[in-house]
Amino acid sequence: MEKRGLLYEGKAKQLFETTEPDVLWVTYKNQATAGNGAKKETIAGKGQLNNQITSLIFEKLKDKGIPSHFIKQLSDTDQAIKKVSMFDLEVVVRNVAAGSFSKRLGVEEGSDLPFPVLEFYLKNDDLNDPLITDEHVLVLGLASADEIRDLKEKTRQINDALINLFRKINIRLVDFKLEFGKTSAGAIVLADEISPDTCRLWDLNTNNRLDKDVFRKDLGDIIPLYQEVLDRLTQL
Amino acid sequence: MEKRGLLYEGKAKQLFETTEPDVLWVTYKNQATAGNGAKKETIAGKGQLNNQITSLIFEKLKDKGIPSHFIKQLSDTDQAIKKVSMFDLEVVVRNVAAGSFSKRLGVEEGSDLPFPVLEFYLKNDDLNDPLITDEHVLVLGLASADEIRDLKEKTRQINDALINLFRKINIRLVDFKLEFGKTSAGAIVLADEISPDTCRLWDLNTNNRLDKDVFRKDLGDIIPLYQEVLDRLTQL
Repeated sequence: MEKRGLLYEGKAKQLFETTEPDVLWVTYKNQATAGNGAKKETIAGKGQLNNQITSLIFEKLKDKGIPSHFIKQLSDTDQAIKKVSMFDLEVVVRNVAAGSFSKRLGVEEGSDLPFPVLEFYLKNDDLNDPLITDEHVLVLGLASADEIRDLKEKTRQINDALINLFRKINIRLVDFKLEFGKTSAGAIVLADEISPDTCRLWDLNTNNRLDKDVFRKDLGDIIPLYQEVLDRLTQL
Repeated sequence: MEKRGLLYEGKAKQLFETTEPDVLWVTYKNQATAGNGAKKETIAGKGQLNNQITSLIFEKLKDKGIPSHFIKQLSDTDQAIKKVSMFDLEVVVRNVAAGSFSKRLGVEEGSDLPFPVLEFYLKNDDLNDPLITDEHVLVLGLASADEIRDLKEKTRQINDALINLFRKINIRLVDFKLEFGKTSAGAIVLADEISPDTCRLWDLNTNNRLDKDVFRKDLGDIIPLYQEVLDRLTQL
């Protein structure tokens, strides 16, 4: 398999076509952004950390019977993935109140939630990725009622698996964002990435942040934190 | 029944205790606000128009078997209502895209929606009344799952009744906001008001606005428009 032309460039990744029609080539970039791109920096080493963390997590989820678009890691910064048709949705799970959830709803950051709260956001930079309800998903034609049910069921399954995974390495999974795609056969599969860019990860003992909030809030260098997450994951 | 002390003063109404323990006295004020109180004006005649319109609509809904907190009109600006325990929720129904729905989701104002979209908002001025999902309602303890179902069912019933009512007087019911309360017996009933302050009402032929958007957008005097709505309603 060889890399072909650039298909799409996002904030954190580049997507290339390959010589295989159903396979794409992802390159994780060293760019960090926050506030819908309002804050932007190049951080050496970030791309390869997120690629390795995501690859590891997608492998672990596969072992638990949860399929994703991930095929294999190609290099420090590169992955081969299945070509899927993406839903224009972000699915967020919140186990603990933090970030925009706390701010919007006036719930103190760090409060345990009585059940994992699942939210949909419209993927649209111009509209600042607004929170949307199930009825909005239907009205905007982003997913059918059956697909919404499937997305939610898969998301809850992934949350259970990830909570356990991170608990084993002494990390509290506060919240995270998932994206999903549809294969040419019509199956809904997990896509995008799962990394400290897309999860809030707090050390179980110290509550120290091991995620992008440290970049968002200018609290220091994220590389040692992302490396810590990778190191702990590789011990599993 | 006599009026007693002021219980609560909102942007558009004052609520007083009465000599009857389960009855409150509402006085509709002449104040108009928009943008969560950012724009504020006294508009002579508005209070009595909204009181008369709301009284008329609550009577019509009662005739259709839809109960509310409304007992009777006491004067041009005053109503007697049942004392209920309010849900800290606004329930919004959208039949046509407009206002914040259009802006947040990028849907052109005036587009017919494929089904009436029902939204919950948290009643909290400090948080700017944010849109919330069903799961947020549960997590914040604003209503139980059964109460959510009941609120939605009643809201859809009210929407059907109001669409018909306004169609008869050549008005398109674009969207509206409801509030609900619980009686001492535990029944959920419609409360607050239904008026051009809480509905978007467009003339069916001209698309002229007959509602508070005219105030929000500085498009002219609202009094003749609210009077027009009342005049048409009294023809029914």
